[in-house]
Amino acid sequence: MHHQPDSVCGATVAASLSLFRQHAPLVHCMTNDVVQTFTANVLLALGASPAMVIDAEEAAQFSAIADGLLINVGTLTAERASAMRAAVDAANRLNRPWTLDPVAVGGLTLRTAFCQQLLQLRPHAIRGNASEILALAQQAGQGRGVDSLHDSVAALPAAQQLARSSGAVVAVTGVVDYVTDGARTLAVAGGSSLMTRVVGTGCALSAVVAGFAALPGDSLQHIASACRVISCAGERATASAQGPGSFIPAFLDALWLLDAEALQ
Amino acid sequence: MHHQPDSVCGATVAASLSLFRQHAPLVHCMTNDVVQTFTANVLLALGASPAMVIDAEEAAQFSAIADGLLINVGTLTAERASAMRAAVDAANRLNRPWTLDPVAVGGLTLRTAFCQQLLQLRPHAIRGNASEILALAQQAGQGRGVDSLHDSVAALPAAQQLARSSGAVVAVTGVVDYVTDGARTLAVAGGSSLMTRVVGTGCALSAVVAGFAALPGDSLQHIASACRVISCAGERATASAQGPGSFIPAFLDALWLLDAEALQ
Amino acid sequence: MHHQPDSVCGATVAASLSLFRQHAPLVHCMTNDVVQTFTANVLLALGASPAMVIDAEEAAQFSAIADGLLINVGTLTAERASAMRAAVDAANRLNRPWTLDPVAVGGLTLRTAFCQQLLQLRPHAIRGNASEILALAQQAGQGRGVDSLHDSVAALPAAQQLARSSGAVVAVTGVVDYVTDGARTLAVAGGSSLMTRVVGTGCALSAVVAGFAALPGDSLQHIASACRVISCAGERATASAQGPGSFIPAFLDALWLLDAEALQ
Repeated sequence: MHHQPDSVCGATVAASLSLFRQHAPLVHCMTNDVVQTFTANVLLALGASPAMVIDAEEAAQFSAIADGLLINVGTLTAERASAMRAAVDAANRLNRPWTLDPVAVGGLTLRTAFCQQLLQLRPHAIRGNASEILALAQQAGQGRGVDSLHDSVAALPAAQQLARSSGAVVAVTGVVDYVTDGARTLAVAGGSSLMTRVVGTGCALSAVVAGFAALPGDSLQHIASACRVISCAGERATASAQGPGSFIPAFLDALWLLDAEALQ
Repeated sequence: MHHQPDSVCGATVAASLSLFRQHAPLVHCMTNDVVQTFTANVLLALGASPAMVIDAEEAAQFSAIADGLLINVGTLTAERASAMRAAVDAANRLNRPWTLDPVAVGGLTLRTAFCQQLLQLRPHAIRGNASEILALAQQAGQGRGVDSLHDSVAALPAAQQLARSSGAVVAVTGVVDYVTDGARTLAVAGGSSLMTRVVGTGCALSAVVAGFAALPGDSLQHIASACRVISCAGERATASAQGPGSFIPAFLDALWLLDAEALQ
Repeated sequence: MHHQPDSVCGATVAASLSLFRQHAPLVHCMTNDVVQTFTANVLLALGASPAMVIDAEEAAQFSAIADGLLINVGTLTAERASAMRAAVDAANRLNRPWTLDPVAVGGLTLRTAFCQQLLQLRPHAIRGNASEILALAQQAGQGRGVDSLHDSVAALPAAQQLARSSGAVVAVTGVVDYVTDGARTLAVAGGSSLMTRVVGTGCALSAVVAGFAALPGDSLQHIASACRVISCAGERATASAQGPGSFIPAFLDALWLLDAEALQ
């Protein structure tokens, strides 16, 4: 990297969020068992409509109704992989954007093979931590489960390469998030370490990315805006929280109350 | 409709709730992945005992122990449908009441066929939004996933017909809830729009209906009372909440603290 | 019982908790659908890393990475039992400790047979309520689902026998918790009745036990410490809660903030 990526601009984030609330995208979430409720509540707090449909046939049917699709492999099984594949195929036939969250890809065989397959199916966006993005780009880098052992900036070249080879906008998240389409890269600061002490903040961000990816306009800007919406709400919640327990309601309230002023 | 349905009476609701707390029904919840925790916490806050048993053989065995059974098709799969069917058959053999929540019925084939089958199996109660009740009564009406595009009053004739054809008490919920056994209808006001920004309030109501349906006495009054208990707690939680995040703990606290005075 | 068991010592609990935070164990949780999020958040609030991996092959692979494994049979299916068995076998091959939570064992056939099989596979720890421990020790005692109908002290002889026959440290929890290795027994007081009005406090304790069981040193003391950490946080949360809703964030905050002073 020869220069520091530009930061996403507050006015752009505010405009993307406003568009998001106006469109209120219906996001089909095929996600892991642990984060379903929180993911749904995050989308609802932002004005979107979450829906979890998991049977293969129904999931394919639902692609005709949903504005965006999230595939999160956190608690993958062979049966769920089939249903996810059916949903992705239907979304692609209908030209609906889908987003991949490659949770803990790298060390575990089923999800690693499945994620490599999915990369051939034109994801619109990919959101992962540094270890996951490095593993997905097959540049080694192996996490300890869902935690990243790498700094996000260390994975930026891998993210840019992955964006170019897959055609997706890639968000590699960490203390600073980097969002890239291979040519352009935006940096998103903010958030707080308390966000890593609550399960599902990353997974919920991926669902929000799936919703922002469905908006008309520049996907790179929209997806960077999704990252900033979450990091901004995280900062505000941390300011009023005593710990990870009180963080959760404060975070959902912050998403609900987020306005242009807060984002600038 | 030639006249406005009567509203459920506060003293009746208080008496039903008191009976509910005294009986502390054990409610077997076969529900969707997204709302399991919240459903259990709502039942616990009201003094009931939730239990989620999902294997087909165990679910049938559990019908001999549970006071009521909830079938919610939100994240249906063929395997789950078989287990639900086994539980319903066992409940029917033992004369235990079971309640149907036909989430997003209408557009998706697996759940629509399954719900039509279940209607032949004598549900004691059915709880859905207007789109779901219209679809279940096969009067068109198709929602966008879990959200209703119809006002609850528009589905009241369908609800009354469905109650007569299935033998169930039918609750069609919305800004005003209507509860009908086909002959009599009660209206339940209250609640707040914030309840639609938290996942699972409708699904949890269905679990509460499954518990109230197990009480001795007039099921129509009990099920209307269940609706009022939830709408009253929703109002109280909304009054103290900053957004959907703080609504959740406030709602569970309100259920826990709800008394005759609040209900009248 | 000829004499009252000793109580776990506050200084020991503080030392165990300090060791736990220092090691930050990665706990592989194969647990029930209802408590996944809460379990993960409890572990995160204590500084551990939760991971839920459920496919049989991946679960076995993950045993090489995780420090401890939890098997909770709350929403068992035949498929999940196979995956759990694969994970336990891998953990045993690698000499990693695994913990059993025999939810509602006794009345339901699939889980009862499976738990009896698991007892042959050298669990490091077992955590259950009185009814579950009595059933597991095959001394009758049948609960009503997840609630215990027995006082924990009534199950202490069964717990001691079970510890001797299985080789596990057995924690039978209730108003007072008893933790025994068959030779020694420790009593753990504290907690509050509000903890029984929130789903998953017992299941989350089992996950915390699975983490404390992975620490170097005396497992009996560590597991009794895990029980005291949870009961102490429960007391503190109850002191500031209005009901079960506000208890949940307060409990996670209390775990996060727990220090030696609070424990003594």
